[in-house]
Amino acid sequence: MSELRREPVLRRWVAISTSPSKGKKETCPFCPGSEGATPPETFVLRETGSRENGPGWWVRVVPNQYPLFRLEGGLGKRAEGMYDMMNNFGAHEVVIETPEHQQTWPEMELGQLERILQAYCQRSLSLRGDNRFRQILITKHHWGPKHHWDPTLEHLLHHPHSHIVAMPFIPARIEDEIRGVLEYQQRKERCIYCDIISQELRAQKRVILETDHFLTFAPYASRYPYETWVIPKSHFPDFAMLSGSQVTDLSQALKAIYTKMQKAFEEAMISMVLHTTPLQEFYREEYHWHIELRARLARPMGFEWGTGFFINYVAPEEAASVLRDIQ
Amino acid sequence: MSELRREPVLRRWVAISTSPSKGKKETCPFCPGSEGATPPETFVLRETGSRENGPGWWVRVVPNQYPLFRLEGGLGKRAEGMYDMMNNFGAHEVVIETPEHQQTWPEMELGQLERILQAYCQRSLSLRGDNRFRQILITKHHWGPKHHWDPTLEHLLHHPHSHIVAMPFIPARIEDEIRGVLEYQQRKERCIYCDIISQELRAQKRVILETDHFLTFAPYASRYPYETWVIPKSHFPDFAMLSGSQVTDLSQALKAIYTKMQKAFEEAMISMVLHTTPLQEFYREEYHWHIELRARLARPMGFEWGTGFFINYVAPEEAASVLRDIQ
Repeated sequence: MSELRREPVLRRWVAISTSPSKGKKETCPFCPGSEGATPPETFVLRETGSRENGPGWWVRVVPNQYPLFRLEGGLGKRAEGMYDMMNNFGAHEVVIETPEHQQTWPEMELGQLERILQAYCQRSLSLRGDNRFRQILITKHHWGPKHHWDPTLEHLLHHPHSHIVAMPFIPARIEDEIRGVLEYQQRKERCIYCDIISQELRAQKRVILETDHFLTFAPYASRYPYETWVIPKSHFPDFAMLSGSQVTDLSQALKAIYTKMQKAFEEAMISMVLHTTPLQEFYREEYHWHIELRARLARPMGFEWGTGFFINYVAPEEAASVLRDIQ
Repeated sequence: MSELRREPVLRRWVAISTSPSKGKKETCPFCPGSEGATPPETFVLRETGSRENGPGWWVRVVPNQYPLFRLEGGLGKRAEGMYDMMNNFGAHEVVIETPEHQQTWPEMELGQLERILQAYCQRSLSLRGDNRFRQILITKHHWGPKHHWDPTLEHLLHHPHSHIVAMPFIPARIEDEIRGVLEYQQRKERCIYCDIISQELRAQKRVILETDHFLTFAPYASRYPYETWVIPKSHFPDFAMLSGSQVTDLSQALKAIYTKMQKAFEEAMISMVLHTTPLQEFYREEYHWHIELRARLARPMGFEWGTGFFINYVAPEEAASVLRDIQ
């Protein structure tokens, strides 16, 4: 069973996804030579002369074989008594980031990171062709070379990859951000993220690094230890519209912050989510896209799961200072 | 440093709490005979003739020695540039649930569970005397006897205890629930939780157990595997106003669900948060108090931390069926 159900009180969608366990793979389906083990590629950057769905690629995007969202069956919105549900309609693709089975972002050439970002942009643009999609989300879990794989994660593929998901609703956090952005816009006639950037650049207390186009900093009310945001310094709603020079600059910023985080937390998983404007009639010029990063250091003990109230044991000023000092 | 900071976009309070590490205790400060190791009790149920802050108690409530919230300094609301902050003003007490150093809720006599619930109620009533408090939250982490203590949790006290927190703001999730409750009330002139209870009792697909006054069930859009709610079957906004017979009935319901969960997940930590109406001018007759429980089975891999979108790999119908069958 795989379906979306709406929490009746909070009116938020939850995926109930009880697909059969993926089991453990003998050979890596993401390595060159195993292209037949995945569905055909939806986007690829490859050597001239190399064949579609064969080796010779640098970055390859394919539909996820165990998708959280799928196109079959359409939206299928329906009631179950007082409750609302729909099919897990959407798209779920995997970006295979490199032909190398073991290669972290800090180890990659800048050009390779640029290719990954190009893949993100191109698929974001293509997927919005289906006007039933309201949001595209890009996420990545990054494993340092010393990461300890706990048994509950054994089924995950080690080969570096990220996820692109196109969904038929706007996830709770983006929806809340947009509400905040619009309220602020109405009151101040300015973008709240632009104001945050100005204040952070002035204060310099929580800045980690700055490139031509991007600011990397620890947000004032960080929910998690070492929470880090990477944000374009000028107002920019839509990640997919990045220019070539912005892509180059962003790949530098990302390589730098991943290098710092990996050095600081050799054993931690680093999780990333890219927040960008919703699509179609929900497209918001007022939104300011950004990346949120989190080093998953320990199982949080707090009660944030039941209250939405977060307790963070590392002040963002301290987090920024630690990460700033790592070269 | 310990302060509350408001996320500027989402307008939600986050605690930045960088208190010095608690270290590991040689002797348990919660065991009888060590009463001097805690601040003086704010509430106690004890044998007749036994002395205040001495042994002979059954349940004892004391201020937390390492409080997340404290009364000193008042609210101290102030700006930091465009950001809002305040002191971590509030109260943080610990309910020492039993004189026994190792005793789980399934092992306790019903009378002992009743005493714990009485302590929750009494402190909830006393603390609302301070009209700066907007919310009281009660939480508990429950460790089964076979729980594997991972090293990041070593500093926690094993002696059974729960937390009572009085805070000067309404936490995000309760605020969102109240918004949902009021919207539904306006549309239907009914309580949404009462409607959920009716539907669940009719459908019987997600019911785990039923006592005279309480329903225990797996909610339709459970965010977590084996998420479970315990809710009064009749409309009731304020946990602290429970009658004696309701306390007796609730202690039975809680003992039963904790027994089932502990049998199902011998090694899991079970976390509980009690949701009740906010206080003072935010008191809401329309609210319907309830308890939310979660078995913490594995580190969630999802991207819910960055999106607010949850993926649950166990259907609530399956969760309810598993828990129902355990005697």
